Amino acid sequence: MADAIETIEGWYALHDFRQINWPLWNSCTSSEREDAISSLMKILNQWTAVEESGEGSTGIYHIIGHKADLLFANFRPTVDELLQAELDIDKSPMSRFFTKPYSYFSVVELSKYLVKGQVDPLALPGTKERLYPILPKTQYVCFYPMNKRREGQDNWYMLSKDERREKMKGHGILGHKYADRVTQIITGSQGLDDWEWGVTLYANDMLDFKKLIYEMRFDEASARFADFGPFLVGKRLTQESLQVLLG
Amino acid sequence: MADAIETIEGWYALHDFRQINWPLWNSCTSSEREDAISSLMKILNQWTAVEESGEGSTGIYHIIGHKADLLFANFRPTVDELLQAELDIDKSPMSRFFTKPYSYFSVVELSKYLVKGQVDPLALPGTKERLYPILPKTQYVCFYPMNKRREGQDNWYMLSKDERREKMKGHGILGHKYADRVTQIITGSQGLDDWEWGVTLYANDMLDFKKLIYEMRFDEASARFADFGPFLVGKRLTQESLQVLLG
Amino acid sequence: MADAIETIEGWYALHDFRQINWPLWNSCTSSEREDAISSLMKILNQWTAVEESGEGSTGIYHIIGHKADLLFANFRPTVDELLQAELDIDKSPMSRFFTKPYSYFSVVELSKYLVKGQVDPLALPGTKERLYPILPKTQYVCFYPMNKRREGQDNWYMLSKDERREKMKGHGILGHKYADRVTQIITGSQGLDDWEWGVTLYANDMLDFKKLIYEMRFDEASARFADFGPFLVGKRLTQESLQVLLG
Amino acid sequence: MADAIETIEGWYALHDFRQINWPLWNSCTSSEREDAISSLMKILNQWTAVEESGEGSTGIYHIIGHKADLLFANFRPTVDELLQAELDIDKSPMSRFFTKPYSYFSVVELSKYLVKGQVDPLALPGTKERLYPILPKTQYVCFYPMNKRREGQDNWYMLSKDERREKMKGHGILGHKYADRVTQIITGSQGLDDWEWGVTLYANDMLDFKKLIYEMRFDEASARFADFGPFLVGKRLTQESLQVLLG
Amino acid sequence: MADAIETIEGWYALHDFRQINWPLWNSCTSSEREDAISSLMKILNQWTAVEESGEGSTGIYHIIGHKADLLFANFRPTVDELLQAELDIDKSPMSRFFTKPYSYFSVVELSKYLVKGQVDPLALPGTKERLYPILPKTQYVCFYPMNKRREGQDNWYMLSKDERREKMKGHGILGHKYADRVTQIITGSQGLDDWEWGVTLYANDMLDFKKLIYEMRFDEASARFADFGPFLVGKRLTQESLQVLLG
Repeated sequence: MADAIETIEGWYALHDFRQINWPLWNSCTSSEREDAISSLMKILNQWTAVEESGEGSTGIYHIIGHKADLLFANFRPTVDELLQAELDIDKSPMSRFFTKPYSYFSVVELSKYLVKGQVDPLALPGTKERLYPILPKTQYVCFYPMNKRREGQDNWYMLSKDERREKMKGHGILGHKYADRVTQIITGSQGLDDWEWGVTLYANDMLDFKKLIYEMRFDEASARFADFGPFLVGKRLTQESLQVLLG
Repeated sequence: MADAIETIEGWYALHDFRQINWPLWNSCTSSEREDAISSLMKILNQWTAVEESGEGSTGIYHIIGHKADLLFANFRPTVDELLQAELDIDKSPMSRFFTKPYSYFSVVELSKYLVKGQVDPLALPGTKERLYPILPKTQYVCFYPMNKRREGQDNWYMLSKDERREKMKGHGILGHKYADRVTQIITGSQGLDDWEWGVTLYANDMLDFKKLIYEMRFDEASARFADFGPFLVGKRLTQESLQVLLG
Repeated sequence: MADAIETIEGWYALHDFRQINWPLWNSCTSSEREDAISSLMKILNQWTAVEESGEGSTGIYHIIGHKADLLFANFRPTVDELLQAELDIDKSPMSRFFTKPYSYFSVVELSKYLVKGQVDPLALPGTKERLYPILPKTQYVCFYPMNKRREGQDNWYMLSKDERREKMKGHGILGHKYADRVTQIITGSQGLDDWEWGVTLYANDMLDFKKLIYEMRFDEASARFADFGPFLVGKRLTQESLQVLLG
Repeated sequence: MADAIETIEGWYALHDFRQINWPLWNSCTSSEREDAISSLMKILNQWTAVEESGEGSTGIYHIIGHKADLLFANFRPTVDELLQAELDIDKSPMSRFFTKPYSYFSVVELSKYLVKGQVDPLALPGTKERLYPILPKTQYVCFYPMNKRREGQDNWYMLSKDERREKMKGHGILGHKYADRVTQIITGSQGLDDWEWGVTLYANDMLDFKKLIYEMRFDEASARFADFGPFLVGKRLTQESLQVLLG
Repeated sequence: MADAIETIEGWYALHDFRQINWPLWNSCTSSEREDAISSLMKILNQWTAVEESGEGSTGIYHIIGHKADLLFANFRPTVDELLQAELDIDKSPMSRFFTKPYSYFSVVELSKYLVKGQVDPLALPGTKERLYPILPKTQYVCFYPMNKRREGQDNWYMLSKDERREKMKGHGILGHKYADRVTQIITGSQGLDDWEWGVTLYANDMLDFKKLIYEMRFDEASARFADFGPFLVGKRLTQESLQVLLG
């Protein structure tokens, strides 16, 4: 029978990637563009107010390459608020210039792999901040979904709890090594979206994403047991820099 | 030769996912939108009447993320009624604002894995309610299709009937554990659509989907033998809340 | 060296699936729609005449779900007639309302797996009817393409002719069991399209497709050696019911 | 270290598949259509002149099914001429009616698998004709790309040169068997396109493609070591029959 | 625990592939086209100035086949400059004629596989030129992304450092063999894009790409351990030849 490591969940997360229809955007009158921008800024102001009141957190990013132009990352206590956040964008005048290339729905997850004994994780320092994270204001972001592999001899879910805990140690050590340079938010999505987890990384140096992921791949937990989805990276936007981007 | 577990089938099901063309929707006059909404409400009223007469059941859901905006889940005694339900949407003024990103066709299925001896399942209490289900009115829904794996040593269909029955026990136990929080409807789709089964889950707490699926993955029947398709989750809509969504 | 079972080929087949652009269709004037329908009916009349003269056979179906709306299944003695049939649709006023989501090109194939000794299969009763089939007028149709698997230990094409013949027996027995409820037309497509075979099933009860495919999956020839493509199912249309569908 | 069989290369090839936007085509005035056709015929005349001068070869085909409508197969001494050929179509008035569903770039390749000893293949009779092929004027064409497999025990590139040569013998024998009915042009595309080889087959009977590919699949070099891409088949067009198709 | 070979990173790279909307381009007035070309030339002039000042490098290529028409390959010291380069194209009048079929984001990477002992690679001759490469002005380019495989017995990341170093030797030897004909730029993309590396090759003879890749595939490091993404090849464009292409 199932011998799952217990998990604790925090805020729900929707990573909402958007592409800008540049030909349409470029061909509009500046007043049409201003209306659209102003509708978007109104939404962002509301999201900022939510974050200030401690009821969630939002990050806006400029994604590099053709997969997307923007990422709206919203973390909220309820699914309903995330449905509304997506809907607010869709019903705004700005949505005329957006297509919807990718999204990811998940929930902040802490697993008790590395918690010893009978300690209540919620009582540990930092747990609350990890379950209800204020998104870091670093320069760069990296998002990717992943699975634990279930193929022939490389079946994570057929390992014993102790084997899994042992194999996750390397992850913990590497995480520690990069702790002051890379902040990671793990969100679980079994039953919620197409992969088992989402990983959102924050750093001031884009190279740290590469170095961390590269090193981790040699760790057995990744080498034999991780399957990765698309990687989307970008730069943090403020309302001001977003307006410059669109202006 | 084949040593299949017998199955019993109930109503046919069509999960009809729709995306809303928001730019077009937003640019319409309110009278065009009202006409479209009113055409949709007329169809929904007919479906409600069908459910009230015991001739089927319908659920409408607001799907999160970019995979879809709406799900129309229809369960009916005949294929022809489902063809007509899809067609009614397509021929309504509302269809102008819809695209069709995904659908799933299947039929309610009970398998006799866990039925002991020569009992007639149809005589068991609750069987009729499971074959001809009135869709639960819980807050949230989760749909995903799946296969039993046929790969090298992990070939479900090469196991003996007893091995399969044994391995399905864990599923039964987990199902029981979550029974008061998650209602599941299993629909078979071998020969009907691209996966072997569809799973539709109902709960008032979205987290229960995650917890159930997560725990099940450590069960050998899932760990070694399940392949999963896309997961689509959302919130139940009434005619009123659907009108608010569109309004 | 190759030790292939001999095959005999009959008519070529083109399964031509079409989606209807409903928003465009719904927004047309009734006279535009009538012109389009009338152009389509003219083509269907020609195809009916071909069938009546014994020079081919045609089936028109209403496909359920989002994969397609219609299937035009044409069986003809030559490739050129099928190229022309597709072209006739494409050049008709109706094509303005069609998109082309999927098609399959293949040729009716009888394999000599189950023929004993030196018998000339063409001399056997029913062979001609199977090579040049008049498509059954049953209520429902099911089409799917498939391969025989070539993976590691599960490599159909590395089995001896006797092993393959042995493994195909179960298929034959199941086929017999369902013979009075399901008619199947096997078409070969090695070198013609992306899978190795197409299977077209006919029945008056959609459930029989599910039951047959489900039972077959436990047969080693399917369990270990079959890979399946998309399944597309639908209901037979007459010219009259097609006009109702479009009207 | 690498123990590759030597190859000799001839002309470069671009298989340029096009779909016709039939709704747009059908809705144009006959003078617009005539302009477009005349622009296409001008290009085809140039290509014919190239073939007549021995500087390349061109085949035009009507592809069956939804993957494409037309194939422009161009063989030329240089990449630059192929870039120009594609560009000529793209910049012609006809391109307004084309979409670009698939293309394949490769170069004619002879491998020395079956050449004994120190013979200079270029001195063998027929080598020049095979490196710089005038495309056969048969009724039908079949194109597909393929790889040699590299999976577990079925890794073509880990076999010794002698094992590979041995396994290719069956291919040679089958090729001989069909030599008077099927002409094949092998083009290599490692480093040029997504598969390792392209195969273009020519025959007057479409069934010969099926029979050849079917028989070959039982040969170990295909059964264990070949992975196939899409198959696209069609009928040869002359300028006259192309005009009829479009007219 | 992880036993990764150290890497050194240089400039960031964005391979920005674009398709030209030829029907729209062809239907424009020559003054609209001139405006668009002139906006593009202005951007290219800025990029040339960047290269001349040693602050990056740019290559423009005409891609063969349907995957793309143009490749803008930009190498820059910072991610921000690449975000801006993509944005400059998107916001120019030329973007109206572009679609965005593919892109790849990575960073120049030297690995120390073949560096002996405690030598500081940065002190070795040529290292700086390899980390901050001025893109070769050869006739042809080839780009493809790739992974090291992690499947069953063929798991690169489960090999010891010495095994990996040993297996990379063949790559080094082949690289040397082709060194005077093919220049390669390796960019790492773990954590940055969907594959682990990008490979950009430069040669004056397109055949050299094929010969190099073909030979390498027989090397165990490729045969057992390399998975390849799409291959995109093309011809170098100057501003003048790009204007001819568009003119």
